[in-house]
Amino acid sequence: MPISGFPEWLPPQRIIEQQVLDRIRSTFELYGYASLETRAVEPLDTLLSKGETSKEVYLLHRLQEDDDSKRDDQLGLHFDLTVPFARFVTENHGKLQFPFKRYQIQKVWRGERPQEGRYREFLQADIDVVSRDTLPFHFDAEMPLVIGDILRSLPIPEATILVNNRKVCEGFYRGLGLADTAQVLRTVDKLDKIGPEKVAALLVETAGATDAQAAACLALAEISATDGSFADRVRALGVTDPLLDEGLDELVRVVDAANAHAPGLVRAELKIARGLDYYTGTVYETQLKGYEQYGSITSGGRYDTLASVGNTRFPGVGISIGVSRLLGLLFGKGALAVSRSVPTCVVVALPSEDQRPACDRIAGKLRARGIPTEVAPSAAKFGKQIQFADRRGIPFVWFPGETGTVKDIRSGEQVEADPETWQPPAVDLHPSVSAS
Amino acid sequence: MPISGFPEWLPPQRIIEQQVLDRIRSTFELYGYASLETRAVEPLDTLLSKGETSKEVYLLHRLQEDDDSKRDDQLGLHFDLTVPFARFVTENHGKLQFPFKRYQIQKVWRGERPQEGRYREFLQADIDVVSRDTLPFHFDAEMPLVIGDILRSLPIPEATILVNNRKVCEGFYRGLGLADTAQVLRTVDKLDKIGPEKVAALLVETAGATDAQAAACLALAEISATDGSFADRVRALGVTDPLLDEGLDELVRVVDAANAHAPGLVRAELKIARGLDYYTGTVYETQLKGYEQYGSITSGGRYDTLASVGNTRFPGVGISIGVSRLLGLLFGKGALAVSRSVPTCVVVALPSEDQRPACDRIAGKLRARGIPTEVAPSAAKFGKQIQFADRRGIPFVWFPGETGTVKDIRSGEQVEADPETWQPPAVDLHPSVSAS
Repeated sequence: MPISGFPEWLPPQRIIEQQVLDRIRSTFELYGYASLETRAVEPLDTLLSKGETSKEVYLLHRLQEDDDSKRDDQLGLHFDLTVPFARFVTENHGKLQFPFKRYQIQKVWRGERPQEGRYREFLQADIDVVSRDTLPFHFDAEMPLVIGDILRSLPIPEATILVNNRKVCEGFYRGLGLADTAQVLRTVDKLDKIGPEKVAALLVETAGATDAQAAACLALAEISATDGSFADRVRALGVTDPLLDEGLDELVRVVDAANAHAPGLVRAELKIARGLDYYTGTVYETQLKGYEQYGSITSGGRYDTLASVGNTRFPGVGISIGVSRLLGLLFGKGALAVSRSVPTCVVVALPSEDQRPACDRIAGKLRARGIPTEVAPSAAKFGKQIQFADRRGIPFVWFPGETGTVKDIRSGEQVEADPETWQPPAVDLHPSVSAS
Repeated sequence: MPISGFPEWLPPQRIIEQQVLDRIRSTFELYGYASLETRAVEPLDTLLSKGETSKEVYLLHRLQEDDDSKRDDQLGLHFDLTVPFARFVTENHGKLQFPFKRYQIQKVWRGERPQEGRYREFLQADIDVVSRDTLPFHFDAEMPLVIGDILRSLPIPEATILVNNRKVCEGFYRGLGLADTAQVLRTVDKLDKIGPEKVAALLVETAGATDAQAAACLALAEISATDGSFADRVRALGVTDPLLDEGLDELVRVVDAANAHAPGLVRAELKIARGLDYYTGTVYETQLKGYEQYGSITSGGRYDTLASVGNTRFPGVGISIGVSRLLGLLFGKGALAVSRSVPTCVVVALPSEDQRPACDRIAGKLRARGIPTEVAPSAAKFGKQIQFADRRGIPFVWFPGETGTVKDIRSGEQVEADPETWQPPAVDLHPSVSAS
């Protein structure tokens, strides 16, 4: 039986997922990110030390466990890849070269209540750069470029990366005279859910804001631009603060770098905050055109204080692609198609069972040149063997003989061919994914 | 802190693991196996329904769980990939094409006692073929060819795949007049651990064997050959039984097919039994030369009764590569090396921070042609920037200028180069793995 929240893809969907992952991985590597995998479990203390997500942890118990296990020995499944990465860095900092650029593509788990219909197991693809003591800001500008290269090369709707900077918000709130900037941030973060009137009321109620201060916070949150013009609009609100200036400069750098790389990729969106996370500067989200109401398919930001060893800090910046979330949305709308449900490009037809060794040799020659090949499972009539290929979307059937022939079963075209030299069209070598 | 049994690789080891996994995957796909991933969890009932391993399950509890969860709702982490695959097939059989060839590369977990020093989380790479009602035997012969292609293409010690067939053993024991063939099999399976004298005594004691019958069982277990000659040696023991004949014919087919494909790859080894598993015919193990004492790095076999829906059976055959086990052994001996610890092939030197956009454009041109490239993280002295590359094993540093130059920092050779056309030697494009 399916288990709510634990999605499983059928073979055609899995091929699509793999090709998406291949593109993610190769792009990460083109930018110099090295692969890392961390164990699936962390001590509960590590998991509980950061953020509110800690409430949704799955704990592990051995089936045959003695009942005397203490809480500080307890292990839980990781709920993201950033907390384990920060732990890995502090544990291995003597063996790593900084700045350390790593990517990590792994499942994560959240012990959500089953009835909520949320994923409880899902795949994330993260990049992060961490350094010792200080981390140059240009890495903040690199994140959207990497994500943009990936998303714009996939057959999916147009993606827009939304960026903001915590320093802009905090500096603005402080410059406005609001002391509890964290509470203001958390409240403004609810804007899309509860609307501006209720946010304003809550700001007055819980953050000690006047009506005018609340209105200014909302005016900031309304600002949005695909170029550096947002900075002037913020300054026009008349609030000044050194942290605000620093944040605006940083945010302009991110937007300018993205525009130089891929115009329209990034939009400064001053209402996004990623309220409950550990970010200290830049924050990222991503909207998919036509899927805006389903929320962000990436999340990330700068975190200057997540990892430290003694007095040594390891500041970082990173972004995570919610692969299961993205594919779940697109699969749900039937928005992606794949040309076949198996890797096989060629089926070698089997005239009779005693010719299997000869057919295996033909298959071996094709495989040796990188062409995925199967020999027909039984010496059924050729019509049935062609059907075997057709049902799986396999494009070619090879007929052995003194002079072999290969048939494109889509067009019906059949030509003489030598397994030492014949090559399928490049587009047919592997399954191909397209929008549908 | 490291957690016993949950290994984590450092970046150079992870690059080696990735390249091994790439080879595994591409070989699986060349033979037409389609990728599948199943969820990490199964209901406890599913996990407990097969084999003795069930005692080593990790159960999951939500941290915020109400205490009224019933046992039949309990979820556990899978301890292999065969049981989840059998569940997946029975759940989705209406949506699959049979025979269904799938591969699955995932972590599995076993709730071993921590002090035993065993892996509690490890990576397996499985192939299986499952069909409806009947599954042609030639798939049993295919398994060692796929595994052989993989292992013989890696820079690791020579691998020998050991094969046997449960029908040979069971038929022989039955022909000998021993009724409890399962008990005989389990006892003979202890041969390597406790030696022939103790096995003979146990056979007399627990399986009702006479001394002569026990001696015959040991004589069978001693037989080993890299060609079909083992069948004559079995027949010379003078036992006859139809199941024995069937098993011998099958085993000869597996050995002959392997010898036609890769001489010496397979050895019939009549003592191997994989005692407690669900196999019904062919069984496989793999020895690595020089690492024989550490046990098998693959396991698998034919299972005719693992999966069924009502009266419909889904017989299968499969084999699993213990990737973590294999790499753990080789890493432990320092037997594998990699040319660098990052994917980066070229570092673009940064003369000054204001030239970063120009350097980014050079990097972008190289990346667009598939060359992994980083721009130096800061405009340090060129000597330091070269050191940045050298420490990571990155072979090339690019110096921008009116006419750019690229330096191979290993040889010191420096040539003029255009980022639109320059190509590194193919061997340097990605990290390369070798025996060490």
